Formats: sequence, structure tokens, C-alpha cells
Amino acid sequence: VPLPEKEFIRKIRSRVKKAGGPIATGIGDDCAVLRIPRGHELLVTTDFSLEGIHFRREWHSARSVGHRCLTRGLSDIAAMGGTPTAAFLSLALPPKLPQSWVDQFTEGLLRLASRFHVVLAGGDTAESPGGVLADIVVVGSVPSGRARSRSGARPGDSIYVTGELGGAAATLGKLMRGKTKLKETEYPRHFYPLPRVGIGQYLQQHDLASSMIDLSDGLSTDLAHLCEESGVGAEIHLQALPLAKIGKPPSLVEANLALHGGEDYELLFTAPRATSMPDRIGRTKITEIGRITRVPTMFVADGQRKTKLSPAGWEHFSNASPSRG
Amino acid sequence: VPLPEKEFIRKIRSRVKKAGGPIATGIGDDCAVLRIPRGHELLVTTDFSLEGIHFRREWHSARSVGHRCLTRGLSDIAAMGGTPTAAFLSLALPPKLPQSWVDQFTEGLLRLASRFHVVLAGGDTAESPGGVLADIVVVGSVPSGRARSRSGARPGDSIYVTGELGGAAATLGKLMRGKTKLKETEYPRHFYPLPRVGIGQYLQQHDLASSMIDLSDGLSTDLAHLCEESGVGAEIHLQALPLAKIGKPPSLVEANLALHGGEDYELLFTAPRATSMPDRIGRTKITEIGRITRVPTMFVADGQRKTKLSPAGWEHFSNASPSRG
Repeated sequence: VPLPEKEFIRKIRSRVKKAGGPIATGIGDDCAVLRIPRGHELLVTTDFSLEGIHFRREWHSARSVGHRCLTRGLSDIAAMGGTPTAAFLSLALPPKLPQSWVDQFTEGLLRLASRFHVVLAGGDTAESPGGVLADIVVVGSVPSGRARSRSGARPGDSIYVTGELGGAAATLGKLMRGKTKLKETEYPRHFYPLPRVGIGQYLQQHDLASSMIDLSDGLSTDLAHLCEESGVGAEIHLQALPLAKIGKPPSLVEANLALHGGEDYELLFTAPRATSMPDRIGRTKITEIGRITRVPTMFVADGQRKTKLSPAGWEHFSNASPSRG
Repeated sequence: VPLPEKEFIRKIRSRVKKAGGPIATGIGDDCAVLRIPRGHELLVTTDFSLEGIHFRREWHSARSVGHRCLTRGLSDIAAMGGTPTAAFLSLALPPKLPQSWVDQFTEGLLRLASRFHVVLAGGDTAESPGGVLADIVVVGSVPSGRARSRSGARPGDSIYVTGELGGAAATLGKLMRGKTKLKETEYPRHFYPLPRVGIGQYLQQHDLASSMIDLSDGLSTDLAHLCEESGVGAEIHLQALPLAKIGKPPSLVEANLALHGGEDYELLFTAPRATSMPDRIGRTKITEIGRITRVPTMFVADGQRKTKLSPAGWEHFSNASPSRG
């Protein structure tokens, strides 16, 4: 067993409960043993965070990488209307990685976990043949039959998004063009995005969403997934898109980043037109941005002009610019 | 989305049920939705299979890599006495990997999955910055309170193993020394190891194991884990170790490979001395190899000679020979 692994396991173990709450057996056995509440179904999601694909050590602090790694999984649970319970981290580390990097990564991940009452209950470690490789598994639950899927959108439904769009991709654009590191606290939408767990639960509990997906790959790509699974099309109103403000002083992002940029981790959902949708859930704005159509094609309307909308989101920064719109 | 990913997802989708049995929602949504039988607890395990660390494309066929990848997870479920339900595959692929490699990998994984009635219910795909990177998550269930842990061994308990030991490591030794590829069918213990799921369930159902672990890192290392979690020591009888036979014509492996070599995926378990243990479970031999002791140290006895046993297993073939005993 390579040394960083042992040290890492020892440190992680000291930070997590071995048992308690939904965890019958946590870290330190062949499997974790979890209890799922009666009348609930289990949710499972897995997401890679790979150095050079999903983050760069020159651009992202270890703390941000750990935070973003877990956000990806929590956001998937949010998109089902579920409650996250436990996370499992598979982490492969290059032999020469400083222990301080691992400590900060763990700190970023565990701080977000505790905010959502999620326990780190296991995982795997290995020596990495290349850069830092993380795979996060998040397990959660939802009352049986209540999970919001991608496939429930019906023609005529209104399309909504939470919060603001394009902030994460606009920040990435700055990172790609810039020569210096950005101050992470000035760009929280990119470095410390918060998954919309509470809003997803609210929409599920109040039966406000006919379908739902999280915006990880970008609106045009994720809307295409939702339309495909529901067998419908969509029309988006460009003027309606809630554009993010980023930086100091704050400046509005371009509309094409709101349309195509990834990693905002907002929720995209639909509801019948008759649904009375609140303007805000908690402190988060809910914005109607378009309509589901019978014709299985996506359009974007800018005033009178209506053009076909193709999935043009996110291919991560290994081989694509944040926007190709 | 890089092309191999899309193609891969399309092919996988065509091979798996979207729903049915314990799967309420499978591949194609933000999360998989699973049903856990009432009165059962959930088991979760994650395991990396990284090119250059856990396998080499020069040595292992894609089919063997896919098979071994899933075996790692199923074997962890077996070690808890559980029943595997669903698998989730996170797979990062180098851009130039031939589609045929992915097809064969998937074939190896799905063939083993279907043998154990396990459904591939989701996962993640990404472009890999290095070699092939796989992380397998296996989810299963066990009647509440019945999971066999590593921590239940008591002084005086007998120590048992299933099957034979050292075959996988001895084959790896041949691969490392050899100039040619081995014929995989002649070395199934290394290329196509079968997880002991049925035996784990049998031991759990008949209350025959006070503690259990699977032999993935090697007897000396995994026994050390079991002893540590149980707060006990152990004495192993070298002459009692069931040595594997490998190759054609079959030859017996060296005892130090049975003691320290990894990846046999047999079960190591303990039971009170009074327990009436069958000689075989199904067609698989059960062998008593030693005794749990109060003193928290491991020894190996060879006739009259008794020497201290240190964990000396598996560091994978990136930086260690299969045996350092």
C-alpha cells in the first residue's frame, strides 16, 4: 500500500464517524452498510473529477477541487428531489502529491458534506498513473415513487431554472484567457458552487415539477437530455435567461454562456402552465425561461427571431472552449 | 461530449434494462433509483481499476479487465454475506482507444454481471488524461443486522479460507518475467477470478462466520485488517495453506505467494472452534488455516518454527513484485 494512501485513510478515518444515523458500518470494512428509511427508494449517482479534464491544479485550489467534486454528486441527488445521505470517495493520487494538497481537498469536500449532513462512508484509494483522479458516489433517498425524473415533461409545460446562469463558464473563460490565478472568493459560482438540494426537495414535496435535471453540462445540452427522455421539444426565450454577475465589480455574463456554459449546478425543471410557481424558493430566484413543445426540436427565440438550438455545452476544458454557441 | 463516450453510452444503454426488478430508474437520469427489500440494509462498495496500476493492456485482454473490474466489487459484497443488486461504472477513456476495446471490456463486465443477476444501472464517462480509468460501484443488500464485518473475530476462533491461494499472484509473476502474452484460459484465477458471492451468502445465512473479509490484497495484509478491526492477533499454519495450481500442465504455487499474493478474491473468515464447518460449500473447498489469538500480533507456524507475520501483500505491479515475503 503506497504511503500517501495510508496517511490519507488515517486522516479521513479520524474525520468521519464509523457508524451512526443511517450508517450501520462506515469506513474500514469491505462495504459500507446503510439504512434506508422505510417507504423510501435509494438514489445513487457517480461523478468523475479528473485533473486536466474537470479541474487544473494551477487554477483550482485543493479546497475548491474537493468542494466541486462533491457538488457534482449532490446536485444529481437534488435533481431527483432527494435527500443525500452518504458519499463514497475513490481517490487516486500521484506518488509525489504533497500531503497538504490531500488535506485541503478533504477539508473542502468534508465542509460541504457537513453542510448537507452527508457522511463520508467509504471509498477506495490508489496510486495514480497520471494526475489526481477522483470519483465521487453519492447515495440518497426519496419517498417511493416521488423521484423527479427527466422524462415527465409534457407539451405546454413551462420551463424554469433556479438562480442565475453562465457564471461558472464565464469564470472558466477568464481562467483560460488570464495569466494569473483568480481570487476564488470573488468567483464563488465557479470555485464553490452550491448544489440546490433544498430547492429540489421543496419542488418534490410540493409536487411542483413534472420533470427535472441539474445544469452540469449547460442549458442547451441538459435541456436536450430532458427533451429526449420526455419525447418533446422546447422553446427558450433568450431575453428571459437569468444572467449571472461575476467578479469585482460584478459584471453580467454573455447570454451565450447562460445558454451553453456548464457547471452552474442550477436546476432546470418543468411544470404544467396552471401550476402556481413561486418567484423564489428560500432566497433563490425561480425564472420561467420557455415552453415545452410537441415537436421534438429545440428553438431559442430572441424577440421575433427564432433559431434552432443545438446542444453546444460543455466538453470540459481539455479540448473545447467553454462556449461554442 | 467526446465521441467515444456517446458511442459507449449508446452501446451500454442498449445492453441494460432501464427499469425492472430492483431498478425503478436506471441509466439515463441524474440518479439511478433502486428499491431495497424491506428489512434489509444497503451495502455499497467502490473499487478502482486503473491502467498501469491494476492492469496492463499488454497483459490483459479488454474482456479480462472488464471482468476483473466487476469482480473487485462483487467480492466485497460477498465478504459481507450480501446479495449484489446493481453496479455503476465510471469509465474514463483515452481519446484514441479503439471502440472494440470498449466493447470487449463491456462484454467482460456484463457477462459476469448477468451471472450474478446484477444490473448495470448507471455511472459516468469522461475523457481520460492518461490511460483507461475505471471505478466500479456495487450496491447490494443484506438482511438488517446480518452483515458479516471484519470486527467480529474472537480469541480462540478458527480461521478459514475458501478455495486455493496464490494463483493470481503466481500468474502475475509469470506475466512480469515473461516475454509473451499468457493464454488467458489456462490461467483463469488471474484473468477471470470468480467472486465467492454464494459462499458469503451461505455463511451469513447459516451463521457460520464471526468475521469475514475478501482476499484482495493478500492473506497477510487482509488478515492484518481483520485482526486490527477485531482487536486480536492470529497464528497461521503454513502447511495448512491450500496452494493453487496454475498453468498447463498444472503446477503448485509457492507458499509465500499463498501467504502474501493478492487478487485471489477468496474469502477469509473466522468461526468459534465449536462451529461445525463443512469441508466444502457447493464445490468449493473450505480450509482451516489457523487460530485467532488474544495477543494482537500475527505469527506463521511452519512445523515447530514460529515467526512473526507482517503484512507484505499487494502493492500492485506499478512498484512492487507480487511477493515480497
